[in-house]
Amino acid sequence: MKVGIVGATGYGGLELIRLLHNHQKVEKIELFTSSDEGAIFSQKYAHLKKLYDQPLQKIEAATLAQLDIVFTSTPSGVSSKLLPPLLNGTTKFIDLSGDFRLKNLEDYEKWYKKEAAPSEVIAQSIYGLSEWNKEAIKEAILIANPGCYPTAVLLSLLPLLKEKLIHASGLIIDAKSGVSGAGNKPSLMTHYSETNENTAIYKIHEHQHIPEIEQAMKMFANSDSPITFTTTLVPMTRGILATSYATLTNGTTEEQLYNCLVEQYKNNPFVRIVRETAKFGTNQVYGSNFCDIHVKVDSRTGRAAIVAVIDNLVKGAAGQAIQNMNIQFGFDETTGLTEVPLFI
Amino acid sequence: MKVGIVGATGYGGLELIRLLHNHQKVEKIELFTSSDEGAIFSQKYAHLKKLYDQPLQKIEAATLAQLDIVFTSTPSGVSSKLLPPLLNGTTKFIDLSGDFRLKNLEDYEKWYKKEAAPSEVIAQSIYGLSEWNKEAIKEAILIANPGCYPTAVLLSLLPLLKEKLIHASGLIIDAKSGVSGAGNKPSLMTHYSETNENTAIYKIHEHQHIPEIEQAMKMFANSDSPITFTTTLVPMTRGILATSYATLTNGTTEEQLYNCLVEQYKNNPFVRIVRETAKFGTNQVYGSNFCDIHVKVDSRTGRAAIVAVIDNLVKGAAGQAIQNMNIQFGFDETTGLTEVPLFI
Amino acid sequence: MKVGIVGATGYGGLELIRLLHNHQKVEKIELFTSSDEGAIFSQKYAHLKKLYDQPLQKIEAATLAQLDIVFTSTPSGVSSKLLPPLLNGTTKFIDLSGDFRLKNLEDYEKWYKKEAAPSEVIAQSIYGLSEWNKEAIKEAILIANPGCYPTAVLLSLLPLLKEKLIHASGLIIDAKSGVSGAGNKPSLMTHYSETNENTAIYKIHEHQHIPEIEQAMKMFANSDSPITFTTTLVPMTRGILATSYATLTNGTTEEQLYNCLVEQYKNNPFVRIVRETAKFGTNQVYGSNFCDIHVKVDSRTGRAAIVAVIDNLVKGAAGQAIQNMNIQFGFDETTGLTEVPLFI
Amino acid sequence: MKVGIVGATGYGGLELIRLLHNHQKVEKIELFTSSDEGAIFSQKYAHLKKLYDQPLQKIEAATLAQLDIVFTSTPSGVSSKLLPPLLNGTTKFIDLSGDFRLKNLEDYEKWYKKEAAPSEVIAQSIYGLSEWNKEAIKEAILIANPGCYPTAVLLSLLPLLKEKLIHASGLIIDAKSGVSGAGNKPSLMTHYSETNENTAIYKIHEHQHIPEIEQAMKMFANSDSPITFTTTLVPMTRGILATSYATLTNGTTEEQLYNCLVEQYKNNPFVRIVRETAKFGTNQVYGSNFCDIHVKVDSRTGRAAIVAVIDNLVKGAAGQAIQNMNIQFGFDETTGLTEVPLFI
Repeated sequence: MKVGIVGATGYGGLELIRLLHNHQKVEKIELFTSSDEGAIFSQKYAHLKKLYDQPLQKIEAATLAQLDIVFTSTPSGVSSKLLPPLLNGTTKFIDLSGDFRLKNLEDYEKWYKKEAAPSEVIAQSIYGLSEWNKEAIKEAILIANPGCYPTAVLLSLLPLLKEKLIHASGLIIDAKSGVSGAGNKPSLMTHYSETNENTAIYKIHEHQHIPEIEQAMKMFANSDSPITFTTTLVPMTRGILATSYATLTNGTTEEQLYNCLVEQYKNNPFVRIVRETAKFGTNQVYGSNFCDIHVKVDSRTGRAAIVAVIDNLVKGAAGQAIQNMNIQFGFDETTGLTEVPLFI
Repeated sequence: MKVGIVGATGYGGLELIRLLHNHQKVEKIELFTSSDEGAIFSQKYAHLKKLYDQPLQKIEAATLAQLDIVFTSTPSGVSSKLLPPLLNGTTKFIDLSGDFRLKNLEDYEKWYKKEAAPSEVIAQSIYGLSEWNKEAIKEAILIANPGCYPTAVLLSLLPLLKEKLIHASGLIIDAKSGVSGAGNKPSLMTHYSETNENTAIYKIHEHQHIPEIEQAMKMFANSDSPITFTTTLVPMTRGILATSYATLTNGTTEEQLYNCLVEQYKNNPFVRIVRETAKFGTNQVYGSNFCDIHVKVDSRTGRAAIVAVIDNLVKGAAGQAIQNMNIQFGFDETTGLTEVPLFI
Repeated sequence: MKVGIVGATGYGGLELIRLLHNHQKVEKIELFTSSDEGAIFSQKYAHLKKLYDQPLQKIEAATLAQLDIVFTSTPSGVSSKLLPPLLNGTTKFIDLSGDFRLKNLEDYEKWYKKEAAPSEVIAQSIYGLSEWNKEAIKEAILIANPGCYPTAVLLSLLPLLKEKLIHASGLIIDAKSGVSGAGNKPSLMTHYSETNENTAIYKIHEHQHIPEIEQAMKMFANSDSPITFTTTLVPMTRGILATSYATLTNGTTEEQLYNCLVEQYKNNPFVRIVRETAKFGTNQVYGSNFCDIHVKVDSRTGRAAIVAVIDNLVKGAAGQAIQNMNIQFGFDETTGLTEVPLFI
Repeated sequence: MKVGIVGATGYGGLELIRLLHNHQKVEKIELFTSSDEGAIFSQKYAHLKKLYDQPLQKIEAATLAQLDIVFTSTPSGVSSKLLPPLLNGTTKFIDLSGDFRLKNLEDYEKWYKKEAAPSEVIAQSIYGLSEWNKEAIKEAILIANPGCYPTAVLLSLLPLLKEKLIHASGLIIDAKSGVSGAGNKPSLMTHYSETNENTAIYKIHEHQHIPEIEQAMKMFANSDSPITFTTTLVPMTRGILATSYATLTNGTTEEQLYNCLVEQYKNNPFVRIVRETAKFGTNQVYGSNFCDIHVKVDSRTGRAAIVAVIDNLVKGAAGQAIQNMNIQFGFDETTGLTEVPLFI
């Protein structure tokens, strides 16, 4: 397999390289960028010395068309323009941005404040939530890889919503994220001295992942209620912990919630249901493609807290993208993704 | 004023020393401990060299009785035994533990899993939520200083509950805390390598601050609904960010929420209502006695997110204790507490 | 006293505000900036709400001339142009940049790669190493406040060099710094995701503080040897730990090194000599104007490690500037600087 | 291959598991511990759920003797007693502690303050500095895996010492380390609130790695001078940055230093010589088995700073141990160690 990465210099691109490097089906990785063309990649990123001493290539349709698969990991609004003309060839595409996720073009324009991709391309794109859309992913030409927050939220809530163990209405989701999700463009928001020793809420009720979560809840669990969703930035590089609060439907027990989750994911190697635990945190999935889920019922209020942790750069981005490639190409789902979490 | 600190070697004690050191009404600070008696304090804590080169004293009733005020900053279950025999003298007491907060003794025993203080002492203790209980604090012999989480939660929710702008039922509170709240006893929970680069949820639905919050909501806002409350540990030393989710009562606007908060706290120097902000975080109160509050209505769901930040060691512990001492002794409320937040 | 701060929006400026806020001799603080004129300061920095809700002022000679003292905390090359025309009035100036420190103009131009200030102004400026230049500081119109690294290095080495207990030749200084020293301009160098979990060496042998250290060693200890000096960035916001390696002169004992340091600083409230310690670190001076010094002789090699810790923003910048103002105006040296280190 | 890990619950053990998990020659990993026997490993370490749900085994000679190789990752003083009786079988051993490193038993007893291993076993042990001792490692029954600090220091200095480009006398080494090197036993030294936002020097001139470095300099470069060596703890989990200061021998140029290093390591996949760099830090080797080296001559003083970075848990412990196993068993040296550094 010849693989291309467009946007190789961003954090999504770097993580794709890190994971694809040890993927046994990948023979060659070509790196593309809209800036720094010709630059030796490892001079820009010293950690890749001896590994990627090749020059960055210019993004050109003809070059991309010769590859088996191309990952685009670019800012919003880039791949919606780049990819449409390329979709008629033999190359498959997995896009890590939000450009092809929302089926409703108005939603995209409202939440992303940018022009949407052409509607016929949107119609063709497949939402790449690996555990929930495998059949469609197998046939996909263009996969819209899910956002980091939606991955954590959906994996933990969809089974319970589908089985109606929790109410769809009144869902409240409080998601905490490390800083790498903001990418590598320097700003005061991600300036060390103002981010370290600081936990801060941002984009309250306005995060662009809200319509993505709601769309997928409708698609996979037939849930049709608006969610309350907030995002908090915590002083660490990697990791998302999403805590969702749901009202239990009549008579639901904690046992039922666990059974439902265990049953749903029994054949899915990357989702782990953790029942007994004193401390449930992001470090237990650090650097890996796992999504761990823990649930706790509050009998005083009849509500449950459903908690999911992922590494935002792996299961929340590059790892799930590779998992989707594996499904698309008929490889074992875990190929290249067997890394053990770092924990420390 | 002669001041005593019992439990001087803990983080609450250290913070009391830091703040009282520049309190213009305090002449002398005496330091007490149940361990390390006789040890030179600054040899244990090098940051206090030249400042507190005095020996730690043994806790003795006769010695404490000669002081104007004694702060007890000890683990649960200590002050409930230490203080009762001392309350008949002229010394005033402010207890930073949870031992005298819960009026219902069964609640204490259920949530703290320890024997409660004598009921007549509990009856006499005054809950030291400075901004809400000033008249009682002025007369108090024994103040039960609020917990760190309750302080952030109550200051931000009580005005809105009292004015019935939000529903008391269905309140969900997702609180994030730095690690210093866990004190200075080493454990895997607070071991650097397992806490750094990790955001983790703990004590879900089981934190002992739950009954304290509910009791105060009843006391100050006549709210009588159980809350859902979870706590998340984030990798930083100081700071709490508490995000509360409430359903708006009929027709409530964001404007009304702000007006209510501004009006409530207009004469309270330590509570700041922040309306416009791109990033609202714990570093804006770091090292200070401020509690900052931000509110955002989600018109899609009819709910509001109410966010409060405090420094858990200052407004959440030692700072509020000194504020209470100021009220008790008729000093200006801000005496010794005018430190500007560090921010960076 | 009316005080002005030019460059109020930088980290040096913010720290001046934090410390001057509680300085009992300061009646009024006026804030100046070359950008954001007219902006309400607390809207830019939320931590200053209720404290500095005033607008930022334009930098104008006439306005500055009406103040008792002006602190300039601006990037290199700014104050060298701004201040010369203002020096004939009654206002005193303390400059926190490197513009007036180096007496040799060629040194400035070589290390800073900028045009030097006028030679007559350089001649007039007084190097503000508080503990070593008090008499000159008392008379100064323009004080060149020392750099952060030089402060830690000089305070720890000057006494030993002056008394010839260590050799001036062959000095090796390995200095570690938190990230706030790099200021508030976002860059990849200070981007959270690339700074967190990373210890990195930068500007090896090329840091502009090298000539400043050498000049002061000549001035105060008559030492005339070049130093080896490297700087390492560590993942924390505040703090410098400088480890210097020196060869002992014939027969020098650890006892003599301690006696020399203790004797030198016996009347200096901000320098603390720490002999016995298991762990000697930056947190013991966090947020304070202290410089702590520890020494350890290696009998196997006849060398000593001399270690100094400061808070780079306090004793390494704003704190020492205020200490200099206190000396200049005849106040007690510790006025406004009695803050206890935060430690945690 | 059947592999055993004694001390599986420590950080060295966990890292061995992480890396061996994807080692294609390893069929089975058995986990041993002196505490927690019978406990399900993944219940103790949630990050290993679905991966290591097996019980921890009791350490028994007969069980270990059936394995092809056993890694011992235990505190000082344990393997010196455990291993001697086991060395006559077919099992090979790699010990990650310091118990078999020092050939001079008195050195061990002086620096480790414990009883040394039997002298005949010490005589038989091979020092596992992979790049420098390959021939001996191939034949080894018992490998003493190098310490973390010595690995970084020796890889960067040995070539220059051997070629006499730098003077052996007067070497000064200032090494900085993340906290994971201290292991998983909670203590105030590694308590989050006292370690975060703190850079601290410890064990100055007294670290037990000093005799190990000196012994290897003698063994591999015939250098016989005592070194000055200090260790600084920085607030991050993983990584060592060691800066060594050396006087250049007559006429040595920076070019020569680079050529020497490049030549020495041209066939060694894990050592990378980095010449041009703005920032050289531990994150460029994070999670990987690389050792990166950078050199800078200071023409003003005739000295060079030689800087090496490693991940202390990988090249400084488990990674190098596996590299040694690969050499011992005739596998490609990089088997199981091709992980790309995480960088972010």
